[in-house]
Amino acid sequence: MPEKKRSLDCIFKPRSIAVIGASRHKGSIGREMMHNLIEYEFNGKVFPVNPKADVIHSMKVYDTVLQIYDDIDLAIVVVPKQHVPQALEDCGRRGIGGVVVISAGFKEVGDDGLRREEELIAICEKYNMRMVGPNCMGVVNTDPAVCMNATFAPTPPLKGNLGFLSQSGAMGVAILEHTRELNLGCSMFCSMGNKADVNTIDLLEYWEDDPDTDVILMYLESFGEPRKFTQLARRVVRKKPVICVKSGRTLAGARAAISHTGALAGLDLAVEALFEQTGIIRVGTVETLFDVAMAFSTQPLPKGDRVAVLTDAGGPAIMATDAIISSGMRMAELSKETEEALMEILPEEAAFGNPVDMLGHCTADHYHTAMPLLLDDPGVDAVIALYVPPVIHDPIVVARAIFDGARGATKPVLTCFMAREDVLHGIKDLGTGVPIYEFPEAAVQALAQMLKYQRFLDKPEGTIPELDVDRDTAAGIIDDAIAEERDYLTTMEGFELLKAYGIPVARWKLCMGAEDSAAFAEECGFPVVVKLMSPTISHKSDYGGVVVDLRSADDVKAAVERILEKVGEADEEILVDGFLVQQMITGGKETILGVSTDPVFGPMVMFGAGGIYVEVLKDVAFRLAPITETDAEDMMRSIRAWPLLKGVRGEDPVHLDRVQDALLRVSQLINDFKRIVEFDVNPFIAHADEDKCLAVDVRFRLRLPE
Amino acid sequence: MPEKKRSLDCIFKPRSIAVIGASRHKGSIGREMMHNLIEYEFNGKVFPVNPKADVIHSMKVYDTVLQIYDDIDLAIVVVPKQHVPQALEDCGRRGIGGVVVISAGFKEVGDDGLRREEELIAICEKYNMRMVGPNCMGVVNTDPAVCMNATFAPTPPLKGNLGFLSQSGAMGVAILEHTRELNLGCSMFCSMGNKADVNTIDLLEYWEDDPDTDVILMYLESFGEPRKFTQLARRVVRKKPVICVKSGRTLAGARAAISHTGALAGLDLAVEALFEQTGIIRVGTVETLFDVAMAFSTQPLPKGDRVAVLTDAGGPAIMATDAIISSGMRMAELSKETEEALMEILPEEAAFGNPVDMLGHCTADHYHTAMPLLLDDPGVDAVIALYVPPVIHDPIVVARAIFDGARGATKPVLTCFMAREDVLHGIKDLGTGVPIYEFPEAAVQALAQMLKYQRFLDKPEGTIPELDVDRDTAAGIIDDAIAEERDYLTTMEGFELLKAYGIPVARWKLCMGAEDSAAFAEECGFPVVVKLMSPTISHKSDYGGVVVDLRSADDVKAAVERILEKVGEADEEILVDGFLVQQMITGGKETILGVSTDPVFGPMVMFGAGGIYVEVLKDVAFRLAPITETDAEDMMRSIRAWPLLKGVRGEDPVHLDRVQDALLRVSQLINDFKRIVEFDVNPFIAHADEDKCLAVDVRFRLRLPE
Repeated sequence: MPEKKRSLDCIFKPRSIAVIGASRHKGSIGREMMHNLIEYEFNGKVFPVNPKADVIHSMKVYDTVLQIYDDIDLAIVVVPKQHVPQALEDCGRRGIGGVVVISAGFKEVGDDGLRREEELIAICEKYNMRMVGPNCMGVVNTDPAVCMNATFAPTPPLKGNLGFLSQSGAMGVAILEHTRELNLGCSMFCSMGNKADVNTIDLLEYWEDDPDTDVILMYLESFGEPRKFTQLARRVVRKKPVICVKSGRTLAGARAAISHTGALAGLDLAVEALFEQTGIIRVGTVETLFDVAMAFSTQPLPKGDRVAVLTDAGGPAIMATDAIISSGMRMAELSKETEEALMEILPEEAAFGNPVDMLGHCTADHYHTAMPLLLDDPGVDAVIALYVPPVIHDPIVVARAIFDGARGATKPVLTCFMAREDVLHGIKDLGTGVPIYEFPEAAVQALAQMLKYQRFLDKPEGTIPELDVDRDTAAGIIDDAIAEERDYLTTMEGFELLKAYGIPVARWKLCMGAEDSAAFAEECGFPVVVKLMSPTISHKSDYGGVVVDLRSADDVKAAVERILEKVGEADEEILVDGFLVQQMITGGKETILGVSTDPVFGPMVMFGAGGIYVEVLKDVAFRLAPITETDAEDMMRSIRAWPLLKGVRGEDPVHLDRVQDALLRVSQLINDFKRIVEFDVNPFIAHADEDKCLAVDVRFRLRLPE
Repeated sequence: MPEKKRSLDCIFKPRSIAVIGASRHKGSIGREMMHNLIEYEFNGKVFPVNPKADVIHSMKVYDTVLQIYDDIDLAIVVVPKQHVPQALEDCGRRGIGGVVVISAGFKEVGDDGLRREEELIAICEKYNMRMVGPNCMGVVNTDPAVCMNATFAPTPPLKGNLGFLSQSGAMGVAILEHTRELNLGCSMFCSMGNKADVNTIDLLEYWEDDPDTDVILMYLESFGEPRKFTQLARRVVRKKPVICVKSGRTLAGARAAISHTGALAGLDLAVEALFEQTGIIRVGTVETLFDVAMAFSTQPLPKGDRVAVLTDAGGPAIMATDAIISSGMRMAELSKETEEALMEILPEEAAFGNPVDMLGHCTADHYHTAMPLLLDDPGVDAVIALYVPPVIHDPIVVARAIFDGARGATKPVLTCFMAREDVLHGIKDLGTGVPIYEFPEAAVQALAQMLKYQRFLDKPEGTIPELDVDRDTAAGIIDDAIAEERDYLTTMEGFELLKAYGIPVARWKLCMGAEDSAAFAEECGFPVVVKLMSPTISHKSDYGGVVVDLRSADDVKAAVERILEKVGEADEEILVDGFLVQQMITGGKETILGVSTDPVFGPMVMFGAGGIYVEVLKDVAFRLAPITETDAEDMMRSIRAWPLLKGVRGEDPVHLDRVQDALLRVSQLINDFKRIVEFDVNPFIAHADEDKCLAVDVRFRLRLPE
């Protein structure tokens, strides 16, 4: 039994650091690392290690960590790849708790590298040492009690409340640059490199209760343990927002990610499902990541979707309005009181509706007085202030007035200054904590993400119910197929399996000929469907083997006889197992329930509009199994055909509880039997009449033992 | 008959300018205008006009333009609104060809302003004077033979090949700032303000053959004469790309636009249709406008969709790959020769596929040698080079190597430098004409727009065909309805009208009772549909008045009798016109053909997937009428259900020529009869069998004379 892994404190809150491979050569990573540690004024001791140097930065240099007699918490390793194992071995023997391996040349370069990386992992396990990397750009903790910039990035990080982790070193560098430009600060930063030990899950857990970290940002290219991650993320997201760029969205992008990090990138469908279920905020680009982070890190969440826009120019206000509506929010309707108060203070020709357009000659005072009026309006949930500096006024003065006007607001305020770069820098340097954007759409997008997060928090967390099912019968059906080395179930077995799990099936019977087919049809009521059951043909329709909408016993008989005739005329020999006679449900909407298994993420429950529209319109929703009631409801609501289920043109809605129940049973079924890799209930009729919500056809695929 | 309007040369190529309202007060618009003209070194004479000043900028000041004895081509008017009419009157008397009215307080402020604006228009017409504005920020021509910066913007424009027009003054200022930041230059710039005279159409015409303008950019909030604009744009776009931000996309945004410019903003559906038909490149934001313009203004168009990515870091390459695939392009497959050549020059651990990842320690030389190898590969249509500066190399040296490597390329090259702001400025200042982006997605988006434009140019222009129709019969049907003061046609009239225009209708007959209904059904073949025709009930289904899928004469008789019975039992008196008996088409796909009329853009032809999916999924395409064959084909291809028409699962495709023909006939019908405001053929069955492509139901709405 391995001992419990050490806390990451040894990495993020060290009292002393050894830099193995420290150097005095400008431009070398060993030198930049030393320089950054010292320049950023690390609060503890730093020991350079390098057998080929005597003095670096006026400090005594050690040949190996073994020569250092002080306690060492963390070692940064920047030596060439072939020397890394020895360096780690020394660290382990020296009792060092954590290492950050900057050196590259491991898993990311192929099989040789992978072997070298496994060697590092073994050493870390042997000494219970935590490792960040290899192939990373380092770690940061801006806490004044630590003050550690253990990266080789040229840009020192600002102090702030963002915990930021990056799977790509290069993106890490680019990102630290970009945060600096935006005046955004981190609490901690971790470039995870190959994630040989410390990974996304460790960092999420570490930052979950860190009081200095209010928002967690991630740049990811792959997921290590998606199920564990999902479970953890569900919990963390309820405490603080987690915002993520996951690249490798497309197949080609994922392929690029594989060749790059050696990670098997999951299909984007599964990633999308994971984000929906956990409430992680997904953004498409790094640029958006920080635009959104800026708002989350400084502003309260909006309580509703009604946005007021304050502006000195029409153009940007129209663009903001377009963006607000397009992202699903609304333009606030200002109260009569607010409008009257605005009329008193604003130029007569201003527009007092929303957007409130104070026109180009308005002053800093106008912004300063109007802002609290909007914020105080009970019909306003958030304010976006836009400002295009005309020639006349000093934009810095106006900016200050806007920020002053927003002081103490309990609603989110976002601003957009369409100004020259240098002016924009001047405004950002005011450092008032109100997010500043260059274009209106960016401000709106950030607000929309905050609202989405608030709505996620408002939804019940949901539980994964334990439904009453006949597990033994189900197990028997599957075991029988496996014993026969069949990787599929017959339609009849499939129906029985659904029944065992409480998913109702339209009345059916396997009949042997025309007479008993007609008799059963009479019994269950018309119309019925007749299907040829044969193990030798896969496309029943090839022999006219499916006949729908039969309205009388005579029709049924005729249909069966016609099929038999066609089968008799066939060039090949066709085995006939019988005829499936089944009640045909009229009315209702065809839907599809099912399960796909992602190689990385495991089984996913699927729901969609049925029939040919699944294939062509791809109107389906996925969630990682097992799903909660909330997940099931979200799935129904998220397909485009949702209005059809709710009922259009005064139709009754379908019995949604029934559909939800069926989805939860699908989830439980796939969760109980790992042998099932895929199944579709297609169609499942979603009907207004509870008793007509029925499965009509089903297809199961199993995984045989190796 | 009014004389032909003057050329805009008087405004954009003046040899002398009077500034009416010139001032020496810093911060005043009159002062900034003078300052900008002089600072930018206007090539001609400038005459300040202001009765209250003697000397401005060491220049003699005139009381009015009437005192100036030199020829004057252009007057810039910056006096308060109440003095503008007199100033224009003076200009007219003085024979000045053009005026730019900066002053605000006209149409944009309501009815009073509108009257003032009409006064200005009358004066301009009287003297055949052209006017830009009022309520604008001025005009620019960077041609060294002119050198005119007649704006009050704080940022002087750079010289370049973009013709740029803006409907918003504030956006104009913001945009000039932004172009400067991006090192983008204009040939001419025009802030159109209220567009009282000079408008988008004039400027498009003026720039159409201007040799200094290679790309036309527009920021628009409304369209003045959409039909004229469409015709002109179709022509101009074939000569040079036109890129447009049209704000007011959403209803709320459009409302904001109305209150702002007094313009009736068109619905976005119509705008979208206009852009699709004319090939104008629409972008969502001003930021994107310039990202895209940067590529169009410097790079050749891509001949295909195969993109190669050259990088020193995996992360950005994955993001680029994602963006390439998501925007519908492909990752190029490099030839064996290219891969081998790359292997010879690149570090052994590099990835030689595409993206070509040369890893973080690659050098400027690597970029310099690899770039032409990619460009020479016949399987590559465009190259995107990404660079994340590591610590070691000077990014400027690398940038220069990339640009050198791309020199003389006949394929587009775009670059992305994820670098510090100051470094990025340094790189941009190299001024090599290769577009430079900060994020990979922006580069990809620009390339995708270039490819879209190239594909538009590749498509046949299309003509609006003159189809053989029976116009007289159609006119008779419509006139009869109008004479009866009916604003609709009966179903029967609708069918006759379609027939007159060559749109085939499923066989039908109006029958009077059960017997003749059954007889006609026998004649046209089963199954049939029976519909109660009554002027007193609008929802036929209320009385079971629609019965489908009747398969025998007996069924038809029974259905008619049952309806009559129900009608007899009704509480209200129900008039029965008869029973529509109609052939029921089996197989085929339901589509909808129709026409909506936009208040600004006029009639639009509509095509979509039929049935309930029109309402719920909104899977429809619109084009402004009249449409070309190319438009009709585009419409069919652009709906999501297009694969259904093309045939899925080995089905035969529907007879596309028939559907296209029907669409063209719809277009001709609406074009011929202005009295028709709306009509739907719903469903029109699109069938594999040409003779089964038939209209099944139709609804016409007419406009009665006032």
